[in-house]
Amino acid sequence: HVRITRALRCIFLVDCRYCGKARFWLFPLPSWRRIFQSLPPFIDILLLLLFFMVIFAILGELCLREYGIMMLSTSCPKYFNTLENSLVNLFVLLTTSNFPDVMMPSYARNPWSCVFFIVYLSIELYFIMNLLLAVVFDTFNDIEKRKFKSLLLHKRTAIQHAYRLLITKQRPSGISFKHFEGLLRFYKPRMCTRERYLTFKALNQSNTPLLSLKDFYNFYEVVGLKWKAKRNREHWFDDLPRTAFLIFKGINILVNSRVFQYTMYTVVAVNGIWILVETFMLQGGNFFSRNVPWSYIVFLTIYGVELLLKTTGLGPVEYLSSGWNLFDFSVTLFAFLGLMALAFNMEPFYFIVVLRPLQLLRLFKLKKRYRNVLDTMFELFPRMASLGLTLLIFYYCFAIVGMEFFAGVVYPNCCNTSTVADSYRWVNHTVGNKTVVEEGYYYLNNFDNILNSFVTLFELTVVNDWYIIMEGVTSQTTHWSRLYFMIFYIVTMVVMTIIVAFILEAFVFRMNYTRKNQDSEEDNGIVLEKEISKEEVVGIIELYKRSSAAPETAQLQKIVLQMDKYGQMSTTFLGRRSRTKSDLSMKMYEEEIQEWYEEHSRKEESQAPLQESASASNSSLKPLSLRQRSQTVI
Amino acid sequence: HVRITRALRCIFLVDCRYCGKARFWLFPLPSWRRIFQSLPPFIDILLLLLFFMVIFAILGELCLREYGIMMLSTSCPKYFNTLENSLVNLFVLLTTSNFPDVMMPSYARNPWSCVFFIVYLSIELYFIMNLLLAVVFDTFNDIEKRKFKSLLLHKRTAIQHAYRLLITKQRPSGISFKHFEGLLRFYKPRMCTRERYLTFKALNQSNTPLLSLKDFYNFYEVVGLKWKAKRNREHWFDDLPRTAFLIFKGINILVNSRVFQYTMYTVVAVNGIWILVETFMLQGGNFFSRNVPWSYIVFLTIYGVELLLKTTGLGPVEYLSSGWNLFDFSVTLFAFLGLMALAFNMEPFYFIVVLRPLQLLRLFKLKKRYRNVLDTMFELFPRMASLGLTLLIFYYCFAIVGMEFFAGVVYPNCCNTSTVADSYRWVNHTVGNKTVVEEGYYYLNNFDNILNSFVTLFELTVVNDWYIIMEGVTSQTTHWSRLYFMIFYIVTMVVMTIIVAFILEAFVFRMNYTRKNQDSEEDNGIVLEKEISKEEVVGIIELYKRSSAAPETAQLQKIVLQMDKYGQMSTTFLGRRSRTKSDLSMKMYEEEIQEWYEEHSRKEESQAPLQESASASNSSLKPLSLRQRSQTVI
Repeated sequence: HVRITRALRCIFLVDCRYCGKARFWLFPLPSWRRIFQSLPPFIDILLLLLFFMVIFAILGELCLREYGIMMLSTSCPKYFNTLENSLVNLFVLLTTSNFPDVMMPSYARNPWSCVFFIVYLSIELYFIMNLLLAVVFDTFNDIEKRKFKSLLLHKRTAIQHAYRLLITKQRPSGISFKHFEGLLRFYKPRMCTRERYLTFKALNQSNTPLLSLKDFYNFYEVVGLKWKAKRNREHWFDDLPRTAFLIFKGINILVNSRVFQYTMYTVVAVNGIWILVETFMLQGGNFFSRNVPWSYIVFLTIYGVELLLKTTGLGPVEYLSSGWNLFDFSVTLFAFLGLMALAFNMEPFYFIVVLRPLQLLRLFKLKKRYRNVLDTMFELFPRMASLGLTLLIFYYCFAIVGMEFFAGVVYPNCCNTSTVADSYRWVNHTVGNKTVVEEGYYYLNNFDNILNSFVTLFELTVVNDWYIIMEGVTSQTTHWSRLYFMIFYIVTMVVMTIIVAFILEAFVFRMNYTRKNQDSEEDNGIVLEKEISKEEVVGIIELYKRSSAAPETAQLQKIVLQMDKYGQMSTTFLGRRSRTKSDLSMKMYEEEIQEWYEEHSRKEESQAPLQESASASNSSLKPLSLRQRSQTVI
Repeated sequence: HVRITRALRCIFLVDCRYCGKARFWLFPLPSWRRIFQSLPPFIDILLLLLFFMVIFAILGELCLREYGIMMLSTSCPKYFNTLENSLVNLFVLLTTSNFPDVMMPSYARNPWSCVFFIVYLSIELYFIMNLLLAVVFDTFNDIEKRKFKSLLLHKRTAIQHAYRLLITKQRPSGISFKHFEGLLRFYKPRMCTRERYLTFKALNQSNTPLLSLKDFYNFYEVVGLKWKAKRNREHWFDDLPRTAFLIFKGINILVNSRVFQYTMYTVVAVNGIWILVETFMLQGGNFFSRNVPWSYIVFLTIYGVELLLKTTGLGPVEYLSSGWNLFDFSVTLFAFLGLMALAFNMEPFYFIVVLRPLQLLRLFKLKKRYRNVLDTMFELFPRMASLGLTLLIFYYCFAIVGMEFFAGVVYPNCCNTSTVADSYRWVNHTVGNKTVVEEGYYYLNNFDNILNSFVTLFELTVVNDWYIIMEGVTSQTTHWSRLYFMIFYIVTMVVMTIIVAFILEAFVFRMNYTRKNQDSEEDNGIVLEKEISKEEVVGIIELYKRSSAAPETAQLQKIVLQMDKYGQMSTTFLGRRSRTKSDLSMKMYEEEIQEWYEEHSRKEESQAPLQESASASNSSLKPLSLRQRSQTVI
């Protein structure tokens, strides 16, 4: 009674709200039709691969079989004695995991037989496998691009619809703030009045009080910005008394100075060398000795002082707003906890001590390229996480299937009849007066429980020596077990290829981007600056008062009061949001986007009569913006 | 006395005329400065890789050493007992060639120790190695693009110079044929008069007798075309008597029919299945039996008949002009030779028989994607060959160094003290009354002569189990030998990455190209059609007669005679050349090329005063076109 359906349970997981990305990976496009459209190129190349494999299997069986027959020893593996063996060994050879071994017996008899293996590997591994990579890469990029295009065009249609609904007969040339405010009240109910006005102002490129369609097209880029008043005071301690101010100012200058930074880098480097030398000198001794090494305390003190200086000099909020500082802080904290664990003899927490070398990561702040790499990593993180989740789901499916079929089949000394018997051996015999244990350890790679299965599957993913695991299981079950391992290999190969393609694409794009924008030093996401004068704010308050929405003006009145207090005529606001994948894609397909728009507007025109009637009924706004919102979430 | 300089000898090879491409790969850009500019990103990421390796080596030594100490058996390898071992094992782990083995001892003691290895592999192998791939890919693309750009701009400058020299004061608006002919006489002395005129006509987009600068810009695209008169007769047998014509016409229709094609595909498929079944049934028997199998003769007869029909139906010239037919022809010829060898018992030629399955390759004609793949392969071939040559040179260098240091150090039972002793064992002992040979075979992977070295280096390239070779050599020499193997790994990794990037780029580009031009069915390279009327030809003959170049008009007069014979008023000529990498790049960077031109013309204008003086002296034409020619060769 085999319960394969358990493996399919995880599909339900995929359908939950938070796995949006993973759902995309399992079901690349809303309809399954698309998947089947994108599969053929991959299968074509896979067929080419298999075809060459069969040709070489026949050649191998014909040419190399004799070496199998000539073998003197019975334990010597016969790689090409039957067609099935030939095929299996060539499949394993494709993964290179049996490489020199499969060649050696025939190479020992006839040196020229190596030509067979070299030609096979050159064609299959170095050519067709790369072709497969290219096809997966291409399909992946194409799907990404199509998804981006349809999202972009949907947004454009939505904007056009909304524009048509928002213009009035009195003012056919654009949207007034009053109507725009109504849209935002509906689209983003939690937005405050100030932000609504700032969004309107950011969209408005001309100086007229109306928003043209061209301005309105940027709606989706601007509406996500978070607005904050540009701070007037520079440091957190500006309001403190004179003496304290001078002290903190001094600390601030010290902390921001190059000398301080490079001193810290030197300390970290010295610490790194110290740890290295210490580890090197340790050789025989026990690392987890009772007494705390004094170097540990010295370095930790230095890091502690640095942390204190930085926190006081920059202010806690600004200090923790930088990812790097956050990293410093947590590493120092961990080191301190490790010291505590050592000092108070809490054995289970000793492992914290070994995290010390992580301090060295701080050295990577030094170079711009590394900062770039790490920034890209953080940018990629959400998507990598979803890819990882997909991989885990695949692992889970295969683990369940593996447990159903292969639980308990592998144990010490289980496979003495197979060619990989050595790896499964566990012999405990006495030579002289010494007990010698011969362990092959591979019996540990089993499917007995879910954790073991995951580790076994990870080993299969890394591919090296996976045929030992396959042969072990096969010798205890049937030949058909090999299908499981081969399918797993192909699936992980595809997923891994997508991951590789993904990382490759993101980094190549990033590098090109950096090369193009070499002048713009730091990349802090999207930043927009807008100035609002006092009159404007007063005007808006008037507008709200007229429409009897008095409670909403409280915030605006606070701004007016603040302006009066400092005697300013205007306040500057900064709109900020982090760069999303969509922004990068906009840059990436810059040229093509214009083409798409043109093509799109041509299509629109041909469907114009239909839309005219649609825009006549006011109710069409609601489904559209809802649909829009769901697409923005995706 | 170690003669390392021998390894450098091959550098001289690189400098020869025919290794233009290889020279490019070894010296990516004319100046070494550029190489050093493109290396830093690679080295940066390599440092990141090494940094994590050191951190994990320290962690591994601290956490996993105890498992080494706890080992009961003395033969059990201790992977993390010293820092050096830790580092070496983690380097090997990066290549995954020792993967489950290095984990197993600690995994057997503590299941959670697998986390260390999984984290290490995830960071190093799946992240930073991909980063390295991205950096190499990016650098490679950037170099390609820069090379293409500079070549393109040089060509443009050359055209502008030439144009300025060729226009005369009487006709400042363009180049007359007379002057253009003078240029071609100098630039391509072997071109005949007819071709010169056709090139002129192909360039001339307007109907005026003068060539404008805009027309002239296409010079390099058009000058390479080979011109041929469009054939009036359709088949080679058109001039034969009526009966013969009808027979051949029938064969021609048969050969071109779909039924015939698909019949042949069926025959090939049946043949494939036959061979498969035959091989499967063979199991114990000897393949090279004396009597020729009848199936062989039957299939060969069918192929022979097909070949004859096609040759007579299409005409030998047209038949052999297709690459696929050429392939069919040679495979059938080989099969026939194999039959001869079998029939007349010529043992050394038996190997030809095993080439039979190659017939199956014909099945790939069926799908457009495979045709595309094979076409791209042929297009890539020259560049792949030069890459292969570079790889061979690297191999040669390393082989020489290896032979100097490691010749004769590896032999059967050489490494009994090392951890990989089993792989080098050669024991011949008697159990009962049977002689059992235990062979590890790895002693065959030595550096004793150049052929063995090449095979060993290929095994190191494939990476799987390379640490066995490394450890074997290391145990017989010093620890520093590892440097040789590690450097070789990094070098081949880079070269392989470039090859992968190269194949990837070419195929992704090709796929995009095919997707864009889906309507244009077949891709036969660049084809241009031009019609010349009788008057034009007569006019040119007059022109030549006036300039007393009478012998050169002979060909033109032949055209006039032929036109008279068939009573035509004009002849159509076809200009044809195969698509080069440059054409593909032109399509690829279409948008950017306009930018480059604009930027270039801006630069030109700022240097205008200098060039004015240069164009004043007529002698500047010669060095320019020579320089051009050499660049076209590159």
